[in-house]
Amino acid sequence: MSSVSILGLGAMGTALAARFLEKKYKVAVWNRSPEKASPLLDKGANIAQTAVDGINASDLIIICLLDNAAVQTTLAGALDQLQGKTIVNLTNGTPDQARKMSDLIVGHGARYVHGGIMATPSMIGSPHALVLYSGSQQAFKASEPDMLMLAKCVFVSEDAGAASLHDLALLSGMYGLFSGFLHATALVRSSTPAVKFMDLLVPWLGAMTEYTKRMAKQIDEGNYASEGSNIAMQLVAIQNIIDTSAAQKVSADFIRPMKQFMEKAVAAGHSGDDISALIYFAKPS
Amino acid sequence: MSSVSILGLGAMGTALAARFLEKKYKVAVWNRSPEKASPLLDKGANIAQTAVDGINASDLIIICLLDNAAVQTTLAGALDQLQGKTIVNLTNGTPDQARKMSDLIVGHGARYVHGGIMATPSMIGSPHALVLYSGSQQAFKASEPDMLMLAKCVFVSEDAGAASLHDLALLSGMYGLFSGFLHATALVRSSTPAVKFMDLLVPWLGAMTEYTKRMAKQIDEGNYASEGSNIAMQLVAIQNIIDTSAAQKVSADFIRPMKQFMEKAVAAGHSGDDISALIYFAKPS
Repeated sequence: MSSVSILGLGAMGTALAARFLEKKYKVAVWNRSPEKASPLLDKGANIAQTAVDGINASDLIIICLLDNAAVQTTLAGALDQLQGKTIVNLTNGTPDQARKMSDLIVGHGARYVHGGIMATPSMIGSPHALVLYSGSQQAFKASEPDMLMLAKCVFVSEDAGAASLHDLALLSGMYGLFSGFLHATALVRSSTPAVKFMDLLVPWLGAMTEYTKRMAKQIDEGNYASEGSNIAMQLVAIQNIIDTSAAQKVSADFIRPMKQFMEKAVAAGHSGDDISALIYFAKPS
Repeated sequence: MSSVSILGLGAMGTALAARFLEKKYKVAVWNRSPEKASPLLDKGANIAQTAVDGINASDLIIICLLDNAAVQTTLAGALDQLQGKTIVNLTNGTPDQARKMSDLIVGHGARYVHGGIMATPSMIGSPHALVLYSGSQQAFKASEPDMLMLAKCVFVSEDAGAASLHDLALLSGMYGLFSGFLHATALVRSSTPAVKFMDLLVPWLGAMTEYTKRMAKQIDEGNYASEGSNIAMQLVAIQNIIDTSAAQKVSADFIRPMKQFMEKAVAAGHSGDDISALIYFAKPS
């Protein structure tokens, strides 16, 4: 019987434990406030009274806490129990935090894998759930059959921080998309219901997402020459958006950084280039 | 034989004229600098020496100039020739400009339709090209069989400014998406080629675009209560992105407005809501 320990029973940790129980794993769970474990008890989980008990219960330890500071606190009294274990840390955080955690844990004789979950708790176990991994590739390979119970797995690199970096990059892409959705919907909603507007916006964003592949190629090749709408022409459209936002009493805050980057690019001689050339200007201001 | 006049032979106007010629229309073209018409002459276009000649040549006049100021200048000497004509103005601009143009042209006895082209010149005539229309619905219906030669047609509303408004809203959505693409790609590209990163980013943005439909429903219903990752939780992720951007020497300018709107929302008691609640805060600051 496969065995796994889960430390941390927030919404995500609980979903992970429930999925393993569904797949007939022997599951030990631990949470700082033990009442969160009760619903899992009915499903067959073993409740560990301490984090040390949780770690001792399995060779594969999955950690999913609020942040990496909580991981550090939780492991502080259990470092001597880590020898020979595989730690898969799915806690959200920065690449630097993941690297420090890797050093700490590898230094105590365990193997470390960091994961970035690209899914909501309700998606765990569904074909749409994805987890990015980085750190020990050997430990990833060994635990992959187990982690596949939860989600599709992508190993990014042996740099323990790479999963968090790619996780945060995907989130920054999502926030850009959402900012565009909010700005666009705010502009039209005095006359068009948001749901109706989606009939136009969703396929349009789908086509423009396809177009980002072309921009990625330009970025890798370092060749930004435009055959269509160059930065100088796009600045006219941006100004029309800003003017129309004012007329519609909608904030232009979401689009102003784009205008500023474009103006910098034009000043540096990139007026005839595609918007992909702005990758050079996405530097700290 | 169907007949159409095209005023303005930039990249887009030329593509429109070429498409009508391909479809065996009788096409009259006019451009301020007449040399731009030469390539179309070989394809069978009639070159009008003046804008008035161009207008007199057909009942359906399609205008595609640099901006609406150029449209005004071009029509200034031809207003008395407009009686009974249908003017389809595909020039980029703001909703207010389109409404003013409509008033001017309708005041001279013509019917006015404004269009927003959601396509590049090379897409004209392809199944992916879309043009949004607004203004006279009767004139739109009458010219739709002709306009369908160019692109899919969507009539938005009888407000002549509505096509430009929806055009600019879709563009603002696109610029949000592009800002997310640029930020995400800038974060990872020191370790991962942009094209390789697209294997993760493109399906992720596809899934998140689907999610915007749910947000649109929340916005129409005015119910933003979160069942997943609420604004307070998302602020933690945003701060991780900002910290990691600094570590990667990437500007956080694209994501900072999102953080500011979220902080405003939390201060107003929306910490337990979904990100769709930010629609309230997308007001001029």
